[in-house]
Amino acid sequence: LTPRLGAANPEAMSTSDSAPYELFYWPSIPGRGEFVRLALEDAGATYLDVARLPASQGGGVPAMLALLKGGGTGLVPFAPPFLRVGPLVLAQSTNILHYLGPRLGLAPSDEGARAELNQLALTLADLVAEVHDTHHPVATGLYYADQKPEALRRTTSFVKERLPKFLGYFERMLERAGASAEGLLGSHSYVDLGIFHVLAGLDYAFPRAMVAQSPKIPGLRALAARVAARPNVAAYLASPRRLAFNENGIFRRYPELDLE
Amino acid sequence: LTPRLGAANPEAMSTSDSAPYELFYWPSIPGRGEFVRLALEDAGATYLDVARLPASQGGGVPAMLALLKGGGTGLVPFAPPFLRVGPLVLAQSTNILHYLGPRLGLAPSDEGARAELNQLALTLADLVAEVHDTHHPVATGLYYADQKPEALRRTTSFVKERLPKFLGYFERMLERAGASAEGLLGSHSYVDLGIFHVLAGLDYAFPRAMVAQSPKIPGLRALAARVAARPNVAAYLASPRRLAFNENGIFRRYPELDLE
Repeated sequence: LTPRLGAANPEAMSTSDSAPYELFYWPSIPGRGEFVRLALEDAGATYLDVARLPASQGGGVPAMLALLKGGGTGLVPFAPPFLRVGPLVLAQSTNILHYLGPRLGLAPSDEGARAELNQLALTLADLVAEVHDTHHPVATGLYYADQKPEALRRTTSFVKERLPKFLGYFERMLERAGASAEGLLGSHSYVDLGIFHVLAGLDYAFPRAMVAQSPKIPGLRALAARVAARPNVAAYLASPRRLAFNENGIFRRYPELDLE
Repeated sequence: LTPRLGAANPEAMSTSDSAPYELFYWPSIPGRGEFVRLALEDAGATYLDVARLPASQGGGVPAMLALLKGGGTGLVPFAPPFLRVGPLVLAQSTNILHYLGPRLGLAPSDEGARAELNQLALTLADLVAEVHDTHHPVATGLYYADQKPEALRRTTSFVKERLPKFLGYFERMLERAGASAEGLLGSHSYVDLGIFHVLAGLDYAFPRAMVAQSPKIPGLRALAARVAARPNVAAYLASPRRLAFNENGIFRRYPELDLE
């Protein structure tokens, strides 16, 4: 595994080019780190995926845990993912993306438009949190096997009510952006990358429910296809840097939760 | 009930003074709207609490629902609270606060510091979401009465693991800010108002657990007391504009969930 050392984006703002971004996230799952990774990859930004580097290069999970325990300067993250950019340590995926957006050419610089993007990103993060809770409705600290009856109940309401509500919302927002819109807010942005990843995760975790949902979200499906075809994204998806969905992550495939 | 029409804050930025802010939130619970309301009140900002105004003044829940159904211009919120500021409609409580912060003198204008505040606000919002799920672990669309066994399991892990983890984190962040710090990031900010409200809510919902937690969070307790003593906050808390916690909101007092 080699760190991503792509070309700096010509649209990038000042500080971002001098030092590479350092991303910290669990090395074995896409998780919430993937939303940040996709933005860095799509923009061709130079970054280090620290917890996936060997300890001999200052990497590994212990390097990440040291910062979580307050071993660095600046604000201490509550949880991964977090991004180190010079003296700043930024945590919370939507917060990282809000900061990176204009620097990576993945958001307008206008504050109002950035707030609208952030609102969409937060709503997408709410959906991701609800997906997590389908298999962990009782306690993050317990295994799925310890909360299976509750998980089945939670997933039933998720698939019937919440999933259609969230997907329908994003489809409507895309419709409002207009037929010529490249993304949810007109031009391509980090939120469109997030939509791509969430649909991929939902297809993995809930294939039967997504077969039923797909005819209702033609715009989102076309958007996700456009994202996947972007050269940097396509190259990333074909690389070992892209981690596969698995049953330690947020999007998990449990046959008993694959409801219609 | 009269709308809040306080004096404009002298530190406020350009657009905020010309037209009042319009806050939209469910009129019978503090909920997530309270984090925005506290910021507006503390800053002495002019705002309308639209859903609490009579229909004859353009208020009421139907006025809010019309915007949620796409009846307005701009981005459509997924859920309340949202704030209308001129042509902008901002949803998601942390997003609203990120926007308002510098305009109300409740955040620095430096982007790095704003990102740190946003990170703390998002972590506080995560705690609030977990409080909500103590009584709604299975489905938002069901009543608490329909998910009581699951709620007891979820609350057990919340009180034992998650509550101490979150409170301990914020107490440590306050310690890192230094003994002379007025708030979590040095000077007073909207996150400090949020801490005050969350502690009040936790005291309401989990009084026994909070008796056990209080000796471990002396800094947060002192911070909350300072917030409550701020003149505009004190006046607000004594007014009918402050809604009481109740069993339709996020912080609910159910004796069977008041665990030690």
